[in-house]
Amino acid sequence: MRILGIDPGIAIVGFGFIDKLGSKLVPVQYGSIQTLAHTDPGIRLKEVYDSTVQLIEKYKPDAMAIEKLFFNRNVTTAFTVGQARGVMILAGVQAGLPVGEYTPLQVKQAVVGYGKAEKHQVQEMVKILLKLSVVPKPDDVADALAVAICHAHSSNLLTQINEAGKR
Amino acid sequence: MRILGIDPGIAIVGFGFIDKLGSKLVPVQYGSIQTLAHTDPGIRLKEVYDSTVQLIEKYKPDAMAIEKLFFNRNVTTAFTVGQARGVMILAGVQAGLPVGEYTPLQVKQAVVGYGKAEKHQVQEMVKILLKLSVVPKPDDVADALAVAICHAHSSNLLTQINEAGKR
Repeated sequence: MRILGIDPGIAIVGFGFIDKLGSKLVPVQYGSIQTLAHTDPGIRLKEVYDSTVQLIEKYKPDAMAIEKLFFNRNVTTAFTVGQARGVMILAGVQAGLPVGEYTPLQVKQAVVGYGKAEKHQVQEMVKILLKLSVVPKPDDVADALAVAICHAHSSNLLTQINEAGKR
Repeated sequence: MRILGIDPGIAIVGFGFIDKLGSKLVPVQYGSIQTLAHTDPGIRLKEVYDSTVQLIEKYKPDAMAIEKLFFNRNVTTAFTVGQARGVMILAGVQAGLPVGEYTPLQVKQAVVGYGKAEKHQVQEMVKILLKLSVVPKPDDVADALAVAICHAHSSNLLTQINEAGKR
């Protein structure tokens, strides 16, 4: 199963494709979509959407996993990121992908095994779990891979539950 | 010039098309897009997007105007509405429409002439300006028409400024 993990944003969107082969996780491709600050907000949204559509067409994932962000301070940022998130989820749904949403707590628990893990611990575990030589940069890319790993572990759990139910 | 006004949301999206003929404003069509609460969030976004695309194809507006909302309390709501807003702006940009964004303050000033106007005053002015027999319901529809009127008045002002500049 191939999973597309996304760390949503408008200036930088992190993305990461991983393959889940049995219990093994293999990185396929990862990087970032970046838009320029002084571009029209609508055009930036279209760029994020178009890039997401192209990535899905090229790497053909079976599922999408996206971080569910909670900002406590800046509602304007929540709106802007929410808009970008909306067009990426739309691209996933249009391609027929199931879309999993995970909170930072769920991602940390799945990747590090500890919900209050520090950012650098998550990044280090992403490197170890995917057998990478360095932590991917910028942070958004490592975060996107972490969400993809979280989805892989969660669907693993679901499979186990389903199989247990069949016995 | 035909303007599509939008009051964004995920459960209810208000929309209103108006024609600006010289200084006259004529209502063309208005209503709401509604999605069911227990539907998958991604599917709801797709429904909002698809409905917006269909409305644009059917009524062929020249511009889109959308309310810029600020919630001070609920960041989760800001995210959800932001996502819906994102897919609607995307539909507008994909159709080549200029998208105007207006704060509630700007809408109230444009429609009532007073930024702290009450909601019912805005609705009453929408009814008067568009020569409607009743205030459109639900509130989201009247709000969408108010945003469209705001855009009509703003573009009017821009035209005047441009014409003044030519003298």
